[in-house]
Amino acid sequence: MKKVKGGITRPKGFFASATWCGLKRKRKDLCLIFSQVPAKAAGVFTSNKVVAAPVIVSKKNLANGTAQAIIANSGNANCMTGKKGLDDAYKMAASIADAMAIKVSDVLVASTGVIGRDLAVGKITSAVDSLTSSLSAASSTDVAKSLMTTDTVPKEVAVTFKLGSSVISIGGVAKGAGMIHPDMATMLSFITTDAAITGQALKKALKESVDATFNCITIDGDTSTNDCVLILANGSAKNRSIGSRGKGYKAFTKALSFVCADLAEKIVRDAEGGTKFVSVNVKKAKSDADAKKAAYAIATSPLVKTAMYGRDPNWGRIAAAVGRSGADLNVGRLDIYLGRAKVVSKGMPAKVANGLLRNIVNKRDIDITVILNKGGSSAGVLTSDLSKKYIEINAHYTT
Amino acid sequence: MKKVKGGITRPKGFFASATWCGLKRKRKDLCLIFSQVPAKAAGVFTSNKVVAAPVIVSKKNLANGTAQAIIANSGNANCMTGKKGLDDAYKMAASIADAMAIKVSDVLVASTGVIGRDLAVGKITSAVDSLTSSLSAASSTDVAKSLMTTDTVPKEVAVTFKLGSSVISIGGVAKGAGMIHPDMATMLSFITTDAAITGQALKKALKESVDATFNCITIDGDTSTNDCVLILANGSAKNRSIGSRGKGYKAFTKALSFVCADLAEKIVRDAEGGTKFVSVNVKKAKSDADAKKAAYAIATSPLVKTAMYGRDPNWGRIAAAVGRSGADLNVGRLDIYLGRAKVVSKGMPAKVANGLLRNIVNKRDIDITVILNKGGSSAGVLTSDLSKKYIEINAHYTT
Repeated sequence: MKKVKGGITRPKGFFASATWCGLKRKRKDLCLIFSQVPAKAAGVFTSNKVVAAPVIVSKKNLANGTAQAIIANSGNANCMTGKKGLDDAYKMAASIADAMAIKVSDVLVASTGVIGRDLAVGKITSAVDSLTSSLSAASSTDVAKSLMTTDTVPKEVAVTFKLGSSVISIGGVAKGAGMIHPDMATMLSFITTDAAITGQALKKALKESVDATFNCITIDGDTSTNDCVLILANGSAKNRSIGSRGKGYKAFTKALSFVCADLAEKIVRDAEGGTKFVSVNVKKAKSDADAKKAAYAIATSPLVKTAMYGRDPNWGRIAAAVGRSGADLNVGRLDIYLGRAKVVSKGMPAKVANGLLRNIVNKRDIDITVILNKGGSSAGVLTSDLSKKYIEINAHYTT
Repeated sequence: MKKVKGGITRPKGFFASATWCGLKRKRKDLCLIFSQVPAKAAGVFTSNKVVAAPVIVSKKNLANGTAQAIIANSGNANCMTGKKGLDDAYKMAASIADAMAIKVSDVLVASTGVIGRDLAVGKITSAVDSLTSSLSAASSTDVAKSLMTTDTVPKEVAVTFKLGSSVISIGGVAKGAGMIHPDMATMLSFITTDAAITGQALKKALKESVDATFNCITIDGDTSTNDCVLILANGSAKNRSIGSRGKGYKAFTKALSFVCADLAEKIVRDAEGGTKFVSVNVKKAKSDADAKKAAYAIATSPLVKTAMYGRDPNWGRIAAAVGRSGADLNVGRLDIYLGRAKVVSKGMPAKVANGLLRNIVNKRDIDITVILNKGGSSAGVLTSDLSKKYIEINAHYTT
């Protein structure tokens, strides 16, 4: 497997376009991803019980496991917009189906932006001509840009790998910088691949990849109403179809996980106001649930996150977060590392040179490792620090 | 019952003092509360599994239900300090026992400050003479001041009420401004009363009062290793002893709850960097657990808290927090109020004049009410906003 240039238009038979339809001020806010043939499709959606209209429509249109296009807008979440919102989401799908002469049920829909405002769907339907007439195999970055809200950089990635005599590509774009927490974040991600793969295998591979990547990041503990990861697999690579197990499945899932991990890391690195990239690892926990609890307690603690922002090696806050996490714990067995420096040994402060600690917390990337010595389970979470800039960005998002 | 001047020295037979022993720079950092006779005593402690040494010692010394003195320091939490820390906490108790000629097991100990630093216990024991020689019935405010860390104001309150022909007083001090979350916060509170009451009734009344007050506030979702609420009841009011039920118990618990509620509100109003006092109420939830989940999801959401800071009536974030809380929910039945303005009606935006909304979010005190229309349970949580100042305060606490 190797990382290559490009994004969602790297796999064969995918075209994309992006345009400005007027939902945002002077920035692209609408995009289309199109497969030349109907593709196997799968999705993973937000666990939030307040669900946006496009999520409802996409789930329904995914039921038969096939899709050919994705239309997405930024600038308005089309959430808590009642029956009109649902009609608007269907109109978005229908306008693409009409223009491209495909089935409405083969169009997936996504929206991101402010909650609770009526969608000016006319602006979107009026821009469909411009979208479809500009479809190209070179516009992945434009699509990534059109999804940005508080994001500061477009996020895309592509990989290729060989399977038998076929070369398979997977490409992805994502958006997200705040309201980021597992299951899922305020994030959209669209992934394309030219692999031939069964619907069942595609679903399984997507879930596995998302669980290990997008679902292991947190920026502020908030989960959005609109999140989804959608994947289309159009079979244009002409490989022998990948099933739910075996070498082909493994190679595909490895490549897909790489794509998801890359995009997830890009989201955390673009965290609203973030100045640090913090990797939290909890080891030797009594159970997987305990390991996760402890890792998330650290990664979501405002006190830990502000300490990281302040370049302050205040590991007492890490210990306090683990202590309240609910994970089984003997303080006398607890070890904590900041980077490679052991700061707590068996529940007591370890001797560390101050200069070494200062070097570690001054870096952009900081590793926090907590060893519970209670069992064999581990968990890892990626997060950012909590800065004044985060407050600034989020204090005035709608106004 | 009426609110009166004073704090912990208002009840008969209590004396207190505070001094500077050198743990903090040029600010009082050590205090003593003393009852002229052994008092019935009870405590509620942190649920954090990383527990500070003074918590271990106080729990042990409370086992027989009697205490006569509380010694407390700020500037060092004496937490994750191993066997030496435990010895140091015992030394604090022993030094007071020696000086006042009382039993070591009748001295309670509390500490607050940085975690994981050896306590310079010699500074404390050297200051005991100064503490005991300055005991007075007028120094409640000094005690409140000596507990302050990031607090900006000392916190105390007193009430009196009549029971039969006796007048009973209850007084309290508290400290806390960050690391505040139920069970318990980074807070210490010491309460005194001259009521005659059984040990069992005192324990029960304290737990009831704390559950409804200190355990219903959150500032940043972090729970500390050192928190405790301690109460001493010395019987000096000479009332007929209060038992675990009946009129006397009710009157006492009402007054104690008032004291706890007043101190809890003062803590939230002094929240680190706080510019808002936000009261979150969830009504008509399916269960008590659901009501609590929803209320805490809102009250701990960085997005909701930054919106309040930014005076932004962005109720979509409130809906999103409720949606991810895990509480049972039908969006179509969801109503949300900001102050008295209904902003969401049956899951849809309600028509509200912008001017009215602006007035509401411009005030210091903001009420958020969410009505789930799924059952009969309610929960209330008090919280603050999340401001740039919070980040500033917490980014550089140890350095």
